[in-house]
Amino acid sequence: MIDIFTTGGTIDKVYFDALSEFQIGPAAIPDMLRENNVHVPHRVTQLMRKDSLELDDADREAIRVAVAASDAARILVTHGTDTMVLTGRVLAGIPGKTIVMTGAMQPASVRASDAEFNVGFALAAVQTLPPGVYIAMNGMIFDPATTVKDRAGQRFVQQ
Amino acid sequence: MIDIFTTGGTIDKVYFDALSEFQIGPAAIPDMLRENNVHVPHRVTQLMRKDSLELDDADREAIRVAVAASDAARILVTHGTDTMVLTGRVLAGIPGKTIVMTGAMQPASVRASDAEFNVGFALAAVQTLPPGVYIAMNGMIFDPATTVKDRAGQRFVQQ
Amino acid sequence: MIDIFTTGGTIDKVYFDALSEFQIGPAAIPDMLRENNVHVPHRVTQLMRKDSLELDDADREAIRVAVAASDAARILVTHGTDTMVLTGRVLAGIPGKTIVMTGAMQPASVRASDAEFNVGFALAAVQTLPPGVYIAMNGMIFDPATTVKDRAGQRFVQQ
Amino acid sequence: MIDIFTTGGTIDKVYFDALSEFQIGPAAIPDMLRENNVHVPHRVTQLMRKDSLELDDADREAIRVAVAASDAARILVTHGTDTMVLTGRVLAGIPGKTIVMTGAMQPASVRASDAEFNVGFALAAVQTLPPGVYIAMNGMIFDPATTVKDRAGQRFVQQ
Repeated sequence: MIDIFTTGGTIDKVYFDALSEFQIGPAAIPDMLRENNVHVPHRVTQLMRKDSLELDDADREAIRVAVAASDAARILVTHGTDTMVLTGRVLAGIPGKTIVMTGAMQPASVRASDAEFNVGFALAAVQTLPPGVYIAMNGMIFDPATTVKDRAGQRFVQQ
Repeated sequence: MIDIFTTGGTIDKVYFDALSEFQIGPAAIPDMLRENNVHVPHRVTQLMRKDSLELDDADREAIRVAVAASDAARILVTHGTDTMVLTGRVLAGIPGKTIVMTGAMQPASVRASDAEFNVGFALAAVQTLPPGVYIAMNGMIFDPATTVKDRAGQRFVQQ
Repeated sequence: MIDIFTTGGTIDKVYFDALSEFQIGPAAIPDMLRENNVHVPHRVTQLMRKDSLELDDADREAIRVAVAASDAARILVTHGTDTMVLTGRVLAGIPGKTIVMTGAMQPASVRASDAEFNVGFALAAVQTLPPGVYIAMNGMIFDPATTVKDRAGQRFVQQ
Repeated sequence: MIDIFTTGGTIDKVYFDALSEFQIGPAAIPDMLRENNVHVPHRVTQLMRKDSLELDDADREAIRVAVAASDAARILVTHGTDTMVLTGRVLAGIPGKTIVMTGAMQPASVRASDAEFNVGFALAAVQTLPPGVYIAMNGMIFDPATTVKDRAGQRFVQQ
């Protein structure tokens, strides 16, 4: 069983015409897993719907509590990219679990989105890596302790 | 360095109006990796352009020779799904390499394709699994020795 | 009321994994009109599911009979592009109706399809043109009596 | 020759990761016409890049001046939907030209966009309608003098 927690972020942004803006909508991942014919046992829980720039310490603590309380040994967290590294560091103390974080630079609702690729990538990482916390982005696996987002390059970089 | 070998299959089918039919075109994977902002070192080699139902023993031997000759320890092979298991068994004897096979039930050129998800999934699997041959499909990792494609269910099943 | 008749053609091709090939599926146009929030009164009838290279004289006669029997003055016909001109000439004798034919060079199921654009174009043409038979392709309106498909150029050309 | 003027609006919104928001980008219409194999003579001019809620009287006057000064008899204007009707009324006094306005409820960059359909629809309307100002949305042709946008219904309605 893989426990998937969604927190919002760019991956879940959709355009609302009545508001003339994009906002975080329902989690994209359940439709995505069904449409890609994914058969690995999993369940999806939406913890919050926030841009990761708006996450505060209480939000990160809530994510940590939910992950720690899960009876699953393998946890996937979708998250905005801007503060993914910070949340990853908060999750670092949880023992005995493989925790993989991913997200997207372009919303899943957009044609040129990296969301499907990244979720596919993260779903394999969470099944194969030993316990620990990982960021799965840009086709690479990063340690949140030593990683930063390079906004201009639209990528994560190991320091 | 990840060595990526493409052999054709549904993943690379595109529609040719002048022929009134779909045929296997150029490998989809280079554009896919670029568009998804993938930064892991890799190179792509197109070995053949065949529907996997048309692959014969000589083709499988050619794939085996190319994989064995690679100086990379991590190899990704894109392949039609109908005989992916057969080719996987031919590759089973190669020592010291992590070899991951993937493909798609719907061409990458099609809106509802599982190609991006599957390639993302396989790209993590090839970086994280120990040496051996694996099929990475349906969000799961399979051993070709004990796996069959369930055509009606559009999925792979462990026997 | 606009009467929409579908006959098959590239526009309706979808990939069937179990057959390892594309075939003409259900008409794409009902979903397309709903997803594009179209509110003009219309009804859709699937007359046949054929590649237009396979249409014979009896098929063309069946299309002519259906169009002539409609109580609507405005008729849209989706059709394969290879013999669209031939069917258009068969429809030329029907008095008092605006008949617009369209189709696609790439299936509606494909990312790079021209289907949505062409159907949108044809739906305006059928509401605005005087009685007659027209081919609505490539952002242009053609008279089937003097038009040919240029296969290499993937376009229709007035002669 | 069809003169196409773009003014911004939802149709041209794209997601900028570095800003964590969608903004109006380059006009979507040139790529769209090329990718849909459109061969009718046209030229595209970007007049402004604004959400239509931000257009003021001076902007509408600038659009009116550009349309009036065009040497083309057929003019297509892409525009945000929220105040499309207002701009349409400002254009109403220009004699001798067929002026068609269109836009989208979902950006062209989004998978579920109505942009391609609407632009196709408008491109036929502008070639076939007599002189006047028209709104081409929802598969229908509206008179701006008697039309409102129904935000909740995501559609235009004749009053």
